Amino acid sequence: MKITLEEMCDELQKVNRVVVAGHVIPDGDAIGSALALAMILKSIGKDVRVMFDDNIPRNFMMMPTCEKIERPSEKIDVDALVIVDTAPDRIGKVLECVGDVPILNIDHHVSNSGENRKLFCDPHAAATAEIIFEIAIELGIKLTKDFAVCVYVGIATDTGFFQFSNTTAETLLIASDMLALGVKPNLVVEVLEQRPIEVVKGLGQSLNTLEVWHDGKAAGMFLDEDLVANLETTEGFIDEIRVIEGVDVSLLLKFMAKNVCRVSMRSKTVDVSKIAMQFGGGGHLRAAGCTLKMPFEDAKRTIMQAIDDALN
Amino acid sequence: MKITLEEMCDELQKVNRVVVAGHVIPDGDAIGSALALAMILKSIGKDVRVMFDDNIPRNFMMMPTCEKIERPSEKIDVDALVIVDTAPDRIGKVLECVGDVPILNIDHHVSNSGENRKLFCDPHAAATAEIIFEIAIELGIKLTKDFAVCVYVGIATDTGFFQFSNTTAETLLIASDMLALGVKPNLVVEVLEQRPIEVVKGLGQSLNTLEVWHDGKAAGMFLDEDLVANLETTEGFIDEIRVIEGVDVSLLLKFMAKNVCRVSMRSKTVDVSKIAMQFGGGGHLRAAGCTLKMPFEDAKRTIMQAIDDALN
Repeated sequence: MKITLEEMCDELQKVNRVVVAGHVIPDGDAIGSALALAMILKSIGKDVRVMFDDNIPRNFMMMPTCEKIERPSEKIDVDALVIVDTAPDRIGKVLECVGDVPILNIDHHVSNSGENRKLFCDPHAAATAEIIFEIAIELGIKLTKDFAVCVYVGIATDTGFFQFSNTTAETLLIASDMLALGVKPNLVVEVLEQRPIEVVKGLGQSLNTLEVWHDGKAAGMFLDEDLVANLETTEGFIDEIRVIEGVDVSLLLKFMAKNVCRVSMRSKTVDVSKIAMQFGGGGHLRAAGCTLKMPFEDAKRTIMQAIDDALN
Repeated sequence: MKITLEEMCDELQKVNRVVVAGHVIPDGDAIGSALALAMILKSIGKDVRVMFDDNIPRNFMMMPTCEKIERPSEKIDVDALVIVDTAPDRIGKVLECVGDVPILNIDHHVSNSGENRKLFCDPHAAATAEIIFEIAIELGIKLTKDFAVCVYVGIATDTGFFQFSNTTAETLLIASDMLALGVKPNLVVEVLEQRPIEVVKGLGQSLNTLEVWHDGKAAGMFLDEDLVANLETTEGFIDEIRVIEGVDVSLLLKFMAKNVCRVSMRSKTVDVSKIAMQFGGGGHLRAAGCTLKMPFEDAKRTIMQAIDDALN
């Protein structure tokens, strides 16, 4: 059941003991929103615990009160569960842990349907953290620097530091308020962008596999079994070749297991979701992926040909 | 002679035929500020030409009216020269081209002394483009999307997309206004981040030279004669290793010519300007550089040792 921001604020004022939870594989917006909302609720006298059924990535530990996040274990007794930045299906064991209590749900994902719970969802918000800020204003909370850091990290990470298409004038207005409260963007960036040395070395090795074809309109990196063996993550690698002048379609092909290869694609004009769908994958116009169940060299030939066809 | 923003606006209203100029090796703020100011002056009926004594980097050509920028050639007859984002010593032949006319100077660099000209300088502005925006407001100009793109690019490039320490709450407020006027940050980023393929390949090769020492507190890339031969630029390369977890001092050593090597350093806590000064260089606490007049392998040993000493 969808409710308004004002109704959500009323609901939050009614409860006394609550758990605030976000999704597994937590990102900056899930964690920042949960922590900022917990600060709001504490400041109006509520008993609040924040729970994630997953590890908190090291880089996000700089958010104030992050160390107080709990993993769900034995059953606990609360009035309500507040879920941020996701529907209840992605909060893991927190659901069992709190039992059958009313759920309040705050989100910005348009796909959230809100069945069997009270949901405030604003798909125009670039981040759930924007909504948490609006709730603080609606409830007349005195904003602190700690709160500002959490909201700022949520918004900055969900907008790629204000560079993605979801960034609005309102997004930057809120970010401006967070700076006025004392957030230092350079210090936040310094912590968030930290990467393990293996990932930095892996980027170098991956760039060595760079091939450009179709008159420079396609560029790909080809990470075979040997190369991926030492690679913790390839997150962000495709962005390094996406920026090559003249490249429309960029590709990351990655060995996953014997006869299983993962394809990630980005584009400037070509509909790469169509290419992905040919192989049972999907995605968006400009960012899509699929899995090819074949040996690495066959996968390489197959996806390069499919990109050629799409560019023709 | 330093004047106020209001006095600068009065001066701008008095002139009729003007040249607006920015510094050589033009960046996004110099170009964006010059173009945005020219739009203001045109809208209040002035005859305006924009001049740079240098090539305009390809990526900036997306700024509206950028194609109208002229290179100085024969002498021209104007009432005044307006210099943005620098003092008159860095505008090349534009100075000769306009001859001995009054100079109006708008800048945000604290080092600008303002001798022999009327200068409005606001060192608290993250970019000169912020000041151009204030001038437009002061003069009551109707703001357009074209104007907004130029101001936005100026601010975004001088603040590293709102990530540098110079970013203020005011910076983000102005950026928010520019988005409200129609700027699409994702489209701006897509153009600005374009890089030639040689640079992307060069980054991969450079990362292959990565060495970490001093218990992981120092990281360096070592670009010898062979490696730099094909490298158009190494701009931004050091940022890729600066982010390695646990690294305090990061180093880029680059062969320039026989017995000449260039050192660039970044740090989190160590004062790298002190290291640079040992070798006749300089810079800031966290970003400094120097030139070592010795063979590459000697330079490598020398600078690694100096960093070791600084870390001890």
